[in-house]
Amino acid sequence: MKDLEHKLNYQFKNPDLLLEALTHRSYGATNNERLEYLGDAALNLIIANYLFRTFPDLVEGEMTRVRAVLVNQDGLSRVARNLDIGSHIKLGGGEVKTGGAERASILADALEAIVGALYIDSGFENAETVVLGMYSEILQGIDPQDVAKDSKTLLQEYLQAKKFKLPIYNVVEVSGEAHEQHFVVDCVLGELKVSAQGSGVSRKSAEQAAAREVLKLIETR
Amino acid sequence: MKDLEHKLNYQFKNPDLLLEALTHRSYGATNNERLEYLGDAALNLIIANYLFRTFPDLVEGEMTRVRAVLVNQDGLSRVARNLDIGSHIKLGGGEVKTGGAERASILADALEAIVGALYIDSGFENAETVVLGMYSEILQGIDPQDVAKDSKTLLQEYLQAKKFKLPIYNVVEVSGEAHEQHFVVDCVLGELKVSAQGSGVSRKSAEQAAAREVLKLIETR
Repeated sequence: MKDLEHKLNYQFKNPDLLLEALTHRSYGATNNERLEYLGDAALNLIIANYLFRTFPDLVEGEMTRVRAVLVNQDGLSRVARNLDIGSHIKLGGGEVKTGGAERASILADALEAIVGALYIDSGFENAETVVLGMYSEILQGIDPQDVAKDSKTLLQEYLQAKKFKLPIYNVVEVSGEAHEQHFVVDCVLGELKVSAQGSGVSRKSAEQAAAREVLKLIETR
Repeated sequence: MKDLEHKLNYQFKNPDLLLEALTHRSYGATNNERLEYLGDAALNLIIANYLFRTFPDLVEGEMTRVRAVLVNQDGLSRVARNLDIGSHIKLGGGEVKTGGAERASILADALEAIVGALYIDSGFENAETVVLGMYSEILQGIDPQDVAKDSKTLLQEYLQAKKFKLPIYNVVEVSGEAHEQHFVVDCVLGELKVSAQGSGVSRKSAEQAAAREVLKLIETR
């Protein structure tokens, strides 16, 4: 564990917290699931705050997309592997035999739990410093150009890649006078049984807003 | 705005932040969407931390469910109405005419944006204090008994209420020796095209874990 603390560049005041964060539920009743819950929320805020301050030109939907890539199972397990978390993880016998220590989901959960442990051990700002350290390489690789595509384009690309049908946009409400109209548009993905509304001052902006909402729904699935 | 600051029990160092938080996108290019993004993440962590510390017996899935109720559109707009945020909101003409200042989605977004503004104005711990103040009544009403139902029961109740078919649980993997077996179960909602895996030391615990994962997917939609 000293080795892991060294890689984190952080020494726990209460090392039991780190131990708990590294304990998978297959190991026993005291495990990292509650810390993972807390760490997931802390990590989301740390990354949100980083994106908010670093990329003032990204809009909400763009920041949401960038963050999703950083904190999904792939992103988390990549950071976890950099830290060699697998070699410290405590698993039940069944999980050990089936290679659980290298499984992305287990590594990702443990990394989130470590963030939760850091937060409890020394507060939000200190946890933030450690997390930005462990993520520094990945954060430096973010190209805001890549994410600035509009939502309708992104949704279309996503659906085409998955071989789903394209969305249908329906105007469901138009109000206001000619020079300041207000549009509400429904974006429907029939096959996925997903739909969401967006509103805007033009049909086009309302469609973009609706596509953005649908992307949010899809990305959290 | 002095009135709102009074209700929040907080005075902004930079009042422009509060103004931005109260400005809906229909009003103009400078609006509360980015602050809403940041505030959503800050609020999630504040509530997660509160639940983590206040209810040591709640498991991860239970804390997730309680939080979802507190920070969904209903919960947020309830708090926003207590603070009378609607009377301070800045909307474009179209939204004003259609009663936007009382719309739950607009109030909820503005409240999240205010949390983001608080966080920027004076850091996480101060924002936390203000948020726990505005949520105090609702937080005191949480009954952990209500949320301690098991995941399979909750999933079933949810699906029945929506008139969907019940989930199918399939064991997809069994490994390990007789006294320490490891089960992986798939929980499938055919109609909703949602499925997720869970694992555990028994078929039953793996089913619960799979139901918990499916609930997470559904609750974030």
